[in-house]
Amino acid sequence: MNTASVALEPNGSPAASETGPFFEAARQRIDAKTKPRGSLGKLETIAVRLAWIQQDLMPQVRRKRVCVFAASHGIAAAGVSAYPPEVTGQMVLNFLAGGAAINVLARHGGIEVHVVDTGVDADWPETVLARPDFFVRRSRRGTRNFLEGRAMTPAECEGALQAGREQARLAVADGIQLLGIGDMGIGNTTAASALFAALLGLDAREVVGRGTGVSAAGVERKAEAVTCALRKHAPDAVVPRDWLEAVGGYEIAAMAGTILEAAAHRLPTVIDGFIATASAAAAFSIEPACRDFCFFAHRSDERAHGAVLAALGADPLLDLGLRLGEGTGAALAMHLIEAAAKVIGEMATFESAGVSGPAELLRNE
Amino acid sequence: MNTASVALEPNGSPAASETGPFFEAARQRIDAKTKPRGSLGKLETIAVRLAWIQQDLMPQVRRKRVCVFAASHGIAAAGVSAYPPEVTGQMVLNFLAGGAAINVLARHGGIEVHVVDTGVDADWPETVLARPDFFVRRSRRGTRNFLEGRAMTPAECEGALQAGREQARLAVADGIQLLGIGDMGIGNTTAASALFAALLGLDAREVVGRGTGVSAAGVERKAEAVTCALRKHAPDAVVPRDWLEAVGGYEIAAMAGTILEAAAHRLPTVIDGFIATASAAAAFSIEPACRDFCFFAHRSDERAHGAVLAALGADPLLDLGLRLGEGTGAALAMHLIEAAAKVIGEMATFESAGVSGPAELLRNE
Repeated sequence: MNTASVALEPNGSPAASETGPFFEAARQRIDAKTKPRGSLGKLETIAVRLAWIQQDLMPQVRRKRVCVFAASHGIAAAGVSAYPPEVTGQMVLNFLAGGAAINVLARHGGIEVHVVDTGVDADWPETVLARPDFFVRRSRRGTRNFLEGRAMTPAECEGALQAGREQARLAVADGIQLLGIGDMGIGNTTAASALFAALLGLDAREVVGRGTGVSAAGVERKAEAVTCALRKHAPDAVVPRDWLEAVGGYEIAAMAGTILEAAAHRLPTVIDGFIATASAAAAFSIEPACRDFCFFAHRSDERAHGAVLAALGADPLLDLGLRLGEGTGAALAMHLIEAAAKVIGEMATFESAGVSGPAELLRNE
Repeated sequence: MNTASVALEPNGSPAASETGPFFEAARQRIDAKTKPRGSLGKLETIAVRLAWIQQDLMPQVRRKRVCVFAASHGIAAAGVSAYPPEVTGQMVLNFLAGGAAINVLARHGGIEVHVVDTGVDADWPETVLARPDFFVRRSRRGTRNFLEGRAMTPAECEGALQAGREQARLAVADGIQLLGIGDMGIGNTTAASALFAALLGLDAREVVGRGTGVSAAGVERKAEAVTCALRKHAPDAVVPRDWLEAVGGYEIAAMAGTILEAAAHRLPTVIDGFIATASAAAAFSIEPACRDFCFFAHRSDERAHGAVLAALGADPLLDLGLRLGEGTGAALAMHLIEAAAKVIGEMATFESAGVSGPAELLRNE
């Protein structure tokens, strides 16, 4: 299939944050700290990036939030998940009860949690609807099965994007300085895989994996679903957004909206795993400049994640074999990003601490 | 050089914590949590290991400490570091003033810091000597240059081991539940490299790297120093401890003592980077069983670290391009280890949260 018309920008060029006078000033500030140059590795790169994003040589990451976007998927009917579709709604209630992995990891990291229903096929009790950390912004009770038609209408896709943009604006209004995005949606690794295949020009077999733990036959069904979907929708897909509507999910579109809106407000976003990376691929294809405001949290255990991260030129922070979603990897990575901000903000300099620099003898070799 | 007589035990067999009834109980507990089995990757492995170490299905990692062991090195006279030897003492004062990277990262992670002078060639002001978090346990004001003779006497080595064992006992007495170890010592990557070559049977060129940032010529000098040291000391080295005395450092011996003593008290230890890994290699060669109580924090940017971790069968948590020491990687990894304890302790189960398990249809495929 020829996907050249929707290919992303090439990723070889340095990010905006890695050039220019502000980058130089942040680099000089971190090089004056009491440590060999570059010896804090990725923490230094992050610190410089954060300083550029916040336009402040003492970047702050005090208030943090993870938004978990949930949606049901029509493609789940094709037997592409190890879990039944009702788990999506059950897990939303688990998030709100504080018992899920993201709740535990967010509490551990001092991170707030918002839960956004962008299209879950479930009914919520009144008590839950009153919660200030729960947002029902349903485009529809689940996408359509993209093997039969487009997953969503343009209006539904726009609604999901807006639900995501709303969370970015809320975060800015609340003084959040680092925003993580994560997902919940039985069936959504297949939607994400289809989106990667379409947007990055990858083969169906390269982009599918075991998801929540399907068998080899399940992986085979996922590859077939992706192949069929690309063949079915390619004639009508002109721009990236067409693919988002054709094979995406409401939570995937919503997270893309968050990435786009957060970048417009210079709010750094932490991309969780495989599904959130699909949202990033969609967002970058709509507005390439938003890439500079994104941190990729981790390389997940989902087989294709490494390949799609490489295709996006992304260098994730963690590699812990996670494959859960929910923003769990983002929550863990936020600790490292906050650490980077503190390194540039709080460490002593060679001068202030009275520590000798590199020996002249060796420096002049 | 034939190092067979001091080779470590082969590492192919599973750790004690990965077998037996306690392991099974912890595995079952974590499998009942609301997530696909294994989907939290290394966090699950760590949680099970912690439960086995503490012999408690709800392991606790509330109070945490990093001990930074400092020492001066005779080998520094051979031009093997980019920094002058006086930096070791200057950095000790920086640790005590709270301005170093380890201070910033420890504060960030809610981790206490102890600083132990195991043989620094510096004089301390009275105000510093009165500090409860500073321990002067000097074997000597720096090791001897191991190109000229043995780095330390047996009595000095024993003193350093005891200084490390004391920190493990203090940690146990203080209710510390996770203990990190890190180093400061200009010249100590060369000592660590020599120890790896001797204990793991690796070639001099495989075990040297840029350390704090030496030039290509500096790396060449390090390789020559390691080659000469192995040739010089091999005739007298019979057991691993002989190599620790011949080419080691006081801080390296001390960290080995901490590892050995902590294991005896079932206190989990977090091994920092290249130098702390040399201590682990020494400790494992003295008492292989202490390996089960160690977590390797990260793969450092020091070129040889990956190879020596592989030789030790170690699977580190982070890979952030760090090459600073001080316990900085250990401090960052502790956040992940504490997260693992909370996952097994706090997450809801499928039953308690009313979430459906994997669909029977697919499970029976």
